[in-house]
Amino acid sequence: MVKNDERKIIVSSVWISDLPKYVGQEVTVKGWVHRLRKVSNRLVFILFKDRSGLVQGVVSGRPDWLAEVVTEAAVEVVAQVTATEQQASGVELQVREIRVVGLVLKELPFELNQEEISAGLELQLDHRVLTLRHPKTQSIFKVQDEIVHAFRTFMRRASFTEIYTPKIVASGTEGGSELFEIKYFESKAYLAQSPQFYKQMVMGGGLQRVYEVGYAYRAEQSNTSRHLSEFLSLDIEMGFIQGLEDVLQVQEELLRFLMVHLQEHCAAELALFNVTLPTVGHIPRLRLKEIAAILQKEYGKELAELDLDSEGERLIGEYVKKKYDSDFLFATHYGRANRAMYTQPSPDDPETSESFDLIYKGMEMNSGAQRVHELTVLEDNIRYKGLDPAGFAHYLEIFSYGMPPHGGFAIGAARLTLKILGLDNIREAVLFPRDRYRTSP
Amino acid sequence: MVKNDERKIIVSSVWISDLPKYVGQEVTVKGWVHRLRKVSNRLVFILFKDRSGLVQGVVSGRPDWLAEVVTEAAVEVVAQVTATEQQASGVELQVREIRVVGLVLKELPFELNQEEISAGLELQLDHRVLTLRHPKTQSIFKVQDEIVHAFRTFMRRASFTEIYTPKIVASGTEGGSELFEIKYFESKAYLAQSPQFYKQMVMGGGLQRVYEVGYAYRAEQSNTSRHLSEFLSLDIEMGFIQGLEDVLQVQEELLRFLMVHLQEHCAAELALFNVTLPTVGHIPRLRLKEIAAILQKEYGKELAELDLDSEGERLIGEYVKKKYDSDFLFATHYGRANRAMYTQPSPDDPETSESFDLIYKGMEMNSGAQRVHELTVLEDNIRYKGLDPAGFAHYLEIFSYGMPPHGGFAIGAARLTLKILGLDNIREAVLFPRDRYRTSP
Repeated sequence: MVKNDERKIIVSSVWISDLPKYVGQEVTVKGWVHRLRKVSNRLVFILFKDRSGLVQGVVSGRPDWLAEVVTEAAVEVVAQVTATEQQASGVELQVREIRVVGLVLKELPFELNQEEISAGLELQLDHRVLTLRHPKTQSIFKVQDEIVHAFRTFMRRASFTEIYTPKIVASGTEGGSELFEIKYFESKAYLAQSPQFYKQMVMGGGLQRVYEVGYAYRAEQSNTSRHLSEFLSLDIEMGFIQGLEDVLQVQEELLRFLMVHLQEHCAAELALFNVTLPTVGHIPRLRLKEIAAILQKEYGKELAELDLDSEGERLIGEYVKKKYDSDFLFATHYGRANRAMYTQPSPDDPETSESFDLIYKGMEMNSGAQRVHELTVLEDNIRYKGLDPAGFAHYLEIFSYGMPPHGGFAIGAARLTLKILGLDNIREAVLFPRDRYRTSP
Repeated sequence: MVKNDERKIIVSSVWISDLPKYVGQEVTVKGWVHRLRKVSNRLVFILFKDRSGLVQGVVSGRPDWLAEVVTEAAVEVVAQVTATEQQASGVELQVREIRVVGLVLKELPFELNQEEISAGLELQLDHRVLTLRHPKTQSIFKVQDEIVHAFRTFMRRASFTEIYTPKIVASGTEGGSELFEIKYFESKAYLAQSPQFYKQMVMGGGLQRVYEVGYAYRAEQSNTSRHLSEFLSLDIEMGFIQGLEDVLQVQEELLRFLMVHLQEHCAAELALFNVTLPTVGHIPRLRLKEIAAILQKEYGKELAELDLDSEGERLIGEYVKKKYDSDFLFATHYGRANRAMYTQPSPDDPETSESFDLIYKGMEMNSGAQRVHELTVLEDNIRYKGLDPAGFAHYLEIFSYGMPPHGGFAIGAARLTLKILGLDNIREAVLFPRDRYRTSP
């Protein structure tokens, strides 16, 4: 039996990024025409693109097939690969033939071969598919693919199982606001706001360490540069922890793994955005009460609650950068009142909870916590939030049957992509964003 | 900089499956009590379970902590690992201490430590989370995790990019039936029935080879053992193909890769279901017209259309097994009338289409096809189906801008799991199934 590691996977043509290996050989490249430059009647330069990169082709003479070759046509290029010092890649193509396999029938709504697309974001999103032909826009989704792939790779190596929990649910996770209602046969249902309950349940059900990459839904009335109706959430839940510190360590190691992975696999894409990835050393941990004291002493800012507003995040981010030279901070022990009912109250301070936010460059990146695992504490917490435990029967069941201490976190894939690439609007990091006013394309 | 391959990932305890490496050492095992057997007042055998397997522990004497140790309690076990020939694993635990970290507060609704769970499927699904504590039920989801992981691994190696397309859509893919309607702010929207249009669009947008693992939704009136409202779909779309044969080759290689992967990673789980995986050799290809002739000649069965009913699938499966000793068959070239409007009509026979079904042991496993890539042909096909091209403007846009020949397929993750493990009901292969009558837990 042939092992999978030794198995050859189908590749029927040569990717542009692999061309340097084929100098002196004839190859077929499949992709699109990015730019055409007619130098003379007998010399045309054509820049080709495929999913892996760009390469310059040289067409000499006046072959018949040249007439059909226009910008954005889908083409199969038969060519000789030659070495050249004129190109960064070190190679160019001496074109022998171009077969047009996908015609261009219309004018483009905007140019796709300039350094940036000259159109507002809304117009770009109306023609989202076309924008993917632009190397920079396409790079966003390659980087996102690698971010999610790195997340999965790390989690699998740490013995987590990937799960798929339902997005059609009978009721909301935490009260009823911001839920999308579905007409479900004769009845109604809702789109899940988070896999929180399910990931805890399945962890406690015996899978022990679980992760999920799935959509979550929020009927956000606001339509700002940060809000989406549908977003991809990277979720984990880990059982048998000693406390919050175990969760922080997993997140810290994940970040370290992620940055190394992106450096190894996305150098070209990161360069298009002038991104230098942050180093993830030991991430400082500061409790909200410590942060409150620092903000008061250093910046004269008073916190009304054990919670941070965006100014607070910015200032403490500044402080941590100055004091510890770290772009990251774990702000821990938010007020019990400021966190969801499944968050573990602190054993040494009932006013606070075993929770954290990861702050990156002065802005919240994601949240996490140790969860409550004792049924009576959880029921108390539900009542403390003004809710009725009877409404959570399906969630609560497993807490009567050997629920271990556990914790986890959730990261928005688009938000992480946006922070890493330094984008302005969350919609730039979603293929087909859904918001207050947009459900198409 | 430490490379990711050399990076150590957090593991704070020893998995049961790794215990043979720790003979003679003291370890901490974290998991649940599966079964207790009191041999005498001073000797108790306890079977422990974690996500990786089962191990027997021996408790000698009458330690204080033993009283709290009951079936399904979450425990941390400190023990010496000893070699034994009595256990298949070759090891057992001499228990020094058990710390109960998750109490059992109630009677179980059914036993979880017998060979099978003695409860009907509906009752099991009402307590789905508890059923995951049963090693056999848990195995289904480990196998499914590995199926999806193998799919992803194969696709990445074949240079496919993973994409995430929206599940909230403005209209249906192929007409309006079986759509779930969402109240979307002041307007309405629907749950996507398939990522078909989006995967074609993004492929043509320049990503060239894409795959998606995501939910699809069908408002199925039927409530049989095969129907789900929400199902996980493994989708691919590949550009610049020469024809249908390229798609068949990718599917064939994927199947081969998958079976080898499962053999390597799920031997124990497959054994619980007495499964011997099929060998994937060269899969025979038969056109529907050839199949029609065979069915008539060999079984006296007439096909009314260029399509197969379940009897036809069973009979041709039988024939292929007898004639070619293959569990698999690619039935190709279904009637143009029997396939969706995005399916390429056959150039040599306008009555048929460049489509296929993969038949496994006489039942359809999944479908695929070469798609239409020429705008005028696609518009004709839309009209041929009695639909109006104007209703598909967002989908059609990219077909004016260099759309290459392409094709792909979709596989239901639960259906694949069901076929591989020989389960009876599709709901067994879904953590929290959604159907006509079920939206919880």
